[in-house]
Amino acid sequence: MPERKLDSDQNLRHRLHTIIFEADTPTGKLFDLLLIFSIIISVIVVMLDSVADLNLKYGQLFLFLEWFFTIIFTAEYLLRLSCIGRPSKYATSFYGIVDLLSILPSYVSLLLPSGKYFLVIRILRLLRVFRVLKLVQYVGESNFLQRALWASRRKISVFLLSVFLMMIIFGSLMYLVEGAENGFTSIPRSIYWAVVTMTTVGYGDISPQTSLGQAIASLVMILGYGIIAIPTGIVTAELTFKRHISTQVCPECSAEGHDVNAKHCKFCGADLHLDKK
Amino acid sequence: MPERKLDSDQNLRHRLHTIIFEADTPTGKLFDLLLIFSIIISVIVVMLDSVADLNLKYGQLFLFLEWFFTIIFTAEYLLRLSCIGRPSKYATSFYGIVDLLSILPSYVSLLLPSGKYFLVIRILRLLRVFRVLKLVQYVGESNFLQRALWASRRKISVFLLSVFLMMIIFGSLMYLVEGAENGFTSIPRSIYWAVVTMTTVGYGDISPQTSLGQAIASLVMILGYGIIAIPTGIVTAELTFKRHISTQVCPECSAEGHDVNAKHCKFCGADLHLDKK
Amino acid sequence: MPERKLDSDQNLRHRLHTIIFEADTPTGKLFDLLLIFSIIISVIVVMLDSVADLNLKYGQLFLFLEWFFTIIFTAEYLLRLSCIGRPSKYATSFYGIVDLLSILPSYVSLLLPSGKYFLVIRILRLLRVFRVLKLVQYVGESNFLQRALWASRRKISVFLLSVFLMMIIFGSLMYLVEGAENGFTSIPRSIYWAVVTMTTVGYGDISPQTSLGQAIASLVMILGYGIIAIPTGIVTAELTFKRHISTQVCPECSAEGHDVNAKHCKFCGADLHLDKK
Amino acid sequence: MPERKLDSDQNLRHRLHTIIFEADTPTGKLFDLLLIFSIIISVIVVMLDSVADLNLKYGQLFLFLEWFFTIIFTAEYLLRLSCIGRPSKYATSFYGIVDLLSILPSYVSLLLPSGKYFLVIRILRLLRVFRVLKLVQYVGESNFLQRALWASRRKISVFLLSVFLMMIIFGSLMYLVEGAENGFTSIPRSIYWAVVTMTTVGYGDISPQTSLGQAIASLVMILGYGIIAIPTGIVTAELTFKRHISTQVCPECSAEGHDVNAKHCKFCGADLHLDKK
Repeated sequence: MPERKLDSDQNLRHRLHTIIFEADTPTGKLFDLLLIFSIIISVIVVMLDSVADLNLKYGQLFLFLEWFFTIIFTAEYLLRLSCIGRPSKYATSFYGIVDLLSILPSYVSLLLPSGKYFLVIRILRLLRVFRVLKLVQYVGESNFLQRALWASRRKISVFLLSVFLMMIIFGSLMYLVEGAENGFTSIPRSIYWAVVTMTTVGYGDISPQTSLGQAIASLVMILGYGIIAIPTGIVTAELTFKRHISTQVCPECSAEGHDVNAKHCKFCGADLHLDKK
Repeated sequence: MPERKLDSDQNLRHRLHTIIFEADTPTGKLFDLLLIFSIIISVIVVMLDSVADLNLKYGQLFLFLEWFFTIIFTAEYLLRLSCIGRPSKYATSFYGIVDLLSILPSYVSLLLPSGKYFLVIRILRLLRVFRVLKLVQYVGESNFLQRALWASRRKISVFLLSVFLMMIIFGSLMYLVEGAENGFTSIPRSIYWAVVTMTTVGYGDISPQTSLGQAIASLVMILGYGIIAIPTGIVTAELTFKRHISTQVCPECSAEGHDVNAKHCKFCGADLHLDKK
Repeated sequence: MPERKLDSDQNLRHRLHTIIFEADTPTGKLFDLLLIFSIIISVIVVMLDSVADLNLKYGQLFLFLEWFFTIIFTAEYLLRLSCIGRPSKYATSFYGIVDLLSILPSYVSLLLPSGKYFLVIRILRLLRVFRVLKLVQYVGESNFLQRALWASRRKISVFLLSVFLMMIIFGSLMYLVEGAENGFTSIPRSIYWAVVTMTTVGYGDISPQTSLGQAIASLVMILGYGIIAIPTGIVTAELTFKRHISTQVCPECSAEGHDVNAKHCKFCGADLHLDKK
Repeated sequence: MPERKLDSDQNLRHRLHTIIFEADTPTGKLFDLLLIFSIIISVIVVMLDSVADLNLKYGQLFLFLEWFFTIIFTAEYLLRLSCIGRPSKYATSFYGIVDLLSILPSYVSLLLPSGKYFLVIRILRLLRVFRVLKLVQYVGESNFLQRALWASRRKISVFLLSVFLMMIIFGSLMYLVEGAENGFTSIPRSIYWAVVTMTTVGYGDISPQTSLGQAIASLVMILGYGIIAIPTGIVTAELTFKRHISTQVCPECSAEGHDVNAKHCKFCGADLHLDKK
């Protein structure tokens, strides 16, 4: 193989990589847009296909569209594999597996007939939208949220643990008080009721009938209604705090608590970034 | 036409504009009050007219009132058109269209008999209340909220996108786990269930029956219950942040957004209180 | 009447006033405690009396207790009237009317037989607990909350107005989309559905059956779920702001933003209360 | 008994204490992990045992596991008693009673046959998880939350009292308006409805049928939906406040509670950063 061919190959791979994995060029942006569009249409097709009436009428069309998108996504998957530096690393990454899972079910369904389960795996294609969007924008925002949640993970764990404990104890208590004749047939089912009630969802499929049960249920509801203030307070305090204050110390007067975007010390006016210059 | 007549015309148009579009004069305020009153009464008439019993008894009265308000609003619309500088701009503006939509249905219903749809368009008259109020007061408050929401639009988009994704994936999962026999007849309907559950509304028209389904549902509920903390935190942090920022402008570099207690401009280091000394 | 008697009368009235209207003395505290206890017991009696089973069994006991408390509260009302400076002012004040309403129903029920309505008026006795507690403690806390809510009344009005408008428009829309056959029999009833849904209560007594209706309902739910962040943010920002910052300006360096309990300027160390000395 | 034996006894007790009550050594950590694992498994056994189907099939296995864990927990309880300094203090402490309650039901069930009630007491074993976790980590987080909640206890009490009052008054009102024929059979049951509605749980087991009832219910829902902002605001303001306060102590007057960016003690005016210069 002449060197020229190799060079052009290298070149093509590089150009493909820019189009597929990056979003800085117009072609790259167009590619991303088309991809998001295809993903959303293909997911809508999967959803509509699950409606019995529509499946009867448009089943053939849906099948055609499904294969149309499967072939497109397969081509895209192969292109990604071919133009990336280390294909094996991509193939075993989270999004590599999502990409594979979004095409595999169609091929497997040719061999195996239990289509319903594969149908739903295709919905996971939607996760790919996040990948594409991640390349384009929102990265900062998402990270900001993630850091705030991460910083408050301990407080949230304590809160969740307490809530779980309350759900289990109140569920068990209601199993005793109401019993199987009022729908609280077992402790797990009573705990399910406690979850439904404490999260203020309140289906009403199981609801207390006795006076004592209704009194305990009232307590559970007020608890669930009120303690939502706690995680909200934790996350808000974290986000408010993060918004305001950098860890920078003024080189002149040693004052702390400067805004994230401050250039000068707000107390003595010294240049905060002096040491970096 | 003598010049005097033209002058008086100009004068009348100007005075009408002051009354109709502004609220600084007593007449202007009275006009706004009467208008809001008419709008609310006419909307209540539309609502009551939809109640079968009341329609039977008071149908004639409602019809009379409807035409009474339609004629008033038509007169008002024509007056607005006549006294504004550029009528075409008003007619194609948002509130111009709302104004037209609040009178058109009555006239169209003379020609076409499908009254029910026109009935509801009349409800949109209520939007006019906002226009009138906007002229009077609350502008600052509304803008303050809008700016805070606008500033946090990216974070809220990331949050909404994640919530939608969770609703779709959990809905699809429940379609598999529960199946058509427990009410989860299709993926769109299962997603509807996921929306009902995750927003903690919980109608109970569809609810999980299997143990696995109830376990997944519990997870969805706790997720929905907990993650409300995130948008609340985002909006609160934004509103709190806006409160702590002074309206002061740096006398040197004209930068805004200084802390209430800042002494020096955080961008250029200039003394913020120089002018007060 | 000799002067001595008058003096002793004056004295008695003063002592009664201290016991009944104040809570600084041990006797005053005991009186308040006994009163709260009587109010709560009498309200519980009213509640239990409304339960058909208990009314059958213990109706006589409840009647006796009701008259027992009525006589106590009547004596207390007369004592209050007798020992206060301006009885007419007390009698026409909010709590004066509440006090009267808590005894009147029993006497009226001797003359008129429609007991059920008078029964419920007696529940309003509970409002008296607030009066008693107000005398004892919590005044500051309650005022703090009230001031924060008052300060944000405009923002909350804008929010409520927008929510009402959305409820009315979405309710009307659902009346069109779902129609009487799916339970949306009239616009007021559809607006009731919109309230139930948007506040995430979700009884399920009316729920959308058509696909389009469920799609719109999903939108309404997500709206209701998300926009709770706005009033929460408003109130929180107000409370956070109020916590932190007094309106005081440092007499030395003119710095603002001092803590409510600060004695010295946190920037230059000057005495903040110098001018008051 | 020779002294050596006594020494070795002392030594063994000390080593046991380190393993059982502390978590600094690898053995102590392993012990805690095994204990948590045992507690969780034993609670899951209790839960599954309450499911009628599983009880029929695996009843024997569950009984065996129950006794297995009871013996383990008994041994642990005896070890704790033996190696602690003052056994009587441990035995009467909160966790000492929880430890006893987690083993007692099994022994009592040998004598008395009403197993269902003892079953549920066993669930309380879960509280022991908190004890073990307390030893390991999270202490600071939990305390932080507790202090914030404690600091806002008065405001939360005022809020809860107002909510209770509203629930009772609206419940009583609905009892009048709707009456027994629409499910509001008594005042306590109507108050239960008010709790279900105001906390936005909304079972739908009792729901208003009359127009007036639905109008009042709408008001209750909007109230319940909106006022959640108040406790959330209270807790958030408290948590945010706590974040912004530095741990610095004034070198002059030892006052605490200074802002993160304070330079001078706000109480005595001393330079806070003196010791760093």
